[in-house]
Amino acid sequence: MAPPTATALTAKDLDRLRVVLVATRNPLNIGAAARAMSNFGVMRLRVVNPYEAAFREAKSAVGASGLLAKAEQYDQVAEAVEDCKLVVGTTVAGDRDLQHRLVGLEAGALAIKRQLKSGPVAILFGSERYGLSNEELSHCHWLMRIPTREEHGSMNLGQAVAVCLYELIRGRKVPARTAPTKEKAIATSKQVERLTQILLDVLNTSGYVKPRAVSAEEKLRRLVRRMTLNTNDVEVLVGMMRQIAWKIGANEKGDK
Amino acid sequence: MAPPTATALTAKDLDRLRVVLVATRNPLNIGAAARAMSNFGVMRLRVVNPYEAAFREAKSAVGASGLLAKAEQYDQVAEAVEDCKLVVGTTVAGDRDLQHRLVGLEAGALAIKRQLKSGPVAILFGSERYGLSNEELSHCHWLMRIPTREEHGSMNLGQAVAVCLYELIRGRKVPARTAPTKEKAIATSKQVERLTQILLDVLNTSGYVKPRAVSAEEKLRRLVRRMTLNTNDVEVLVGMMRQIAWKIGANEKGDK
Repeated sequence: MAPPTATALTAKDLDRLRVVLVATRNPLNIGAAARAMSNFGVMRLRVVNPYEAAFREAKSAVGASGLLAKAEQYDQVAEAVEDCKLVVGTTVAGDRDLQHRLVGLEAGALAIKRQLKSGPVAILFGSERYGLSNEELSHCHWLMRIPTREEHGSMNLGQAVAVCLYELIRGRKVPARTAPTKEKAIATSKQVERLTQILLDVLNTSGYVKPRAVSAEEKLRRLVRRMTLNTNDVEVLVGMMRQIAWKIGANEKGDK
Repeated sequence: MAPPTATALTAKDLDRLRVVLVATRNPLNIGAAARAMSNFGVMRLRVVNPYEAAFREAKSAVGASGLLAKAEQYDQVAEAVEDCKLVVGTTVAGDRDLQHRLVGLEAGALAIKRQLKSGPVAILFGSERYGLSNEELSHCHWLMRIPTREEHGSMNLGQAVAVCLYELIRGRKVPARTAPTKEKAIATSKQVERLTQILLDVLNTSGYVKPRAVSAEEKLRRLVRRMTLNTNDVEVLVGMMRQIAWKIGANEKGDK
């Protein structure tokens, strides 16, 4: 199995990946697989021997993607994987007596990523009810399993495609626009102390603490600092407390 | 954000995770989310304000799991996350002007895993068409994004749930933490919301915000959650605000 040295996939690498749906029955599942592919930038869909009406329906569905319109249809698995240097089957395994090496999704994805750097790879997904048949599996180099619970291993087809593709693309940089929003600067001690003082005044005036109760002031100071407030938030809080102070007639010594 | 030190989740940890579907329209999506949850061993589903017929249909579907039968229904996000110490929203982000910190799924999952070791966590998924509204987002501590393509970011709901849960459960070979630092328990959403409400009352009465100004309430809710208060501090702050409320004659609806 590949050592954990694979780098993130480029768009060119992803263009070498073929998602192959074998004997799919439900048009919604073909559509869902296509949608997940588009979400993760994997654009080459191949279908083998689909339930014919299902495939027509999926292709003609409102909002069907160009990806689906360009999907290639084959009668046999052999034809669908002809150009691929690595063919990986997906399976729940379960009680089946498998003749192939079976690896977890994470390890499998690493091996696929390494191969995608140099040539086309196919990932096969079987029918909703039976998965991949032994004949279909015989075209695979090895098999991959999503780490589902033993008690309920079988995944929905569209969800299985989504999870496999996610595992392949994760670690890629997300577009700049969706990068983490800039965090606001942490407030200075001066700002925090200003908030502490005005809060203390409000609490004095409201009768929550006795004037000049030292331990209360210290407790309050520690409490305010545990909040790790940012500069904006501390200004907002000071504004709130000033309004409250005005309303209750506190002697707002901490301000101005 | 959490350092990459989280160990794999135990069944007990997973039992602390709540998947919260907000305003879901399509029963197939509720069913698909439930299936992915069962696949990955996450059994606690909560639905907020679903399209009523959709929820009934999903529950009564042939093969609907016990998980779905036991799903809890709520009218408000606040109620659905009441027992949670961390509330994470999922979003495509896109062009939206988000007010929260936004992290990638991998980083987010690490932080969630760490929190699940000590207390309940909710992951929120919005409606198929609009995602989470600003009001719904205001209950979240931060937001998480699946690394989809910018050109086609929006995922199918069931697939998004599957991918997020996969990222949480996938095996992670990292050294166990030697000595977890003892921290005060983080406040539950119920506690934090109680503080939010009483603070809002005080601010209304003092004239800082106009009664029923929705955006002010959302801003305040986000601000309070950014503080990541512990249980003791939130109780102290609620006590302070109650005193102030009493002093200025606020109508303290949030309490008792």
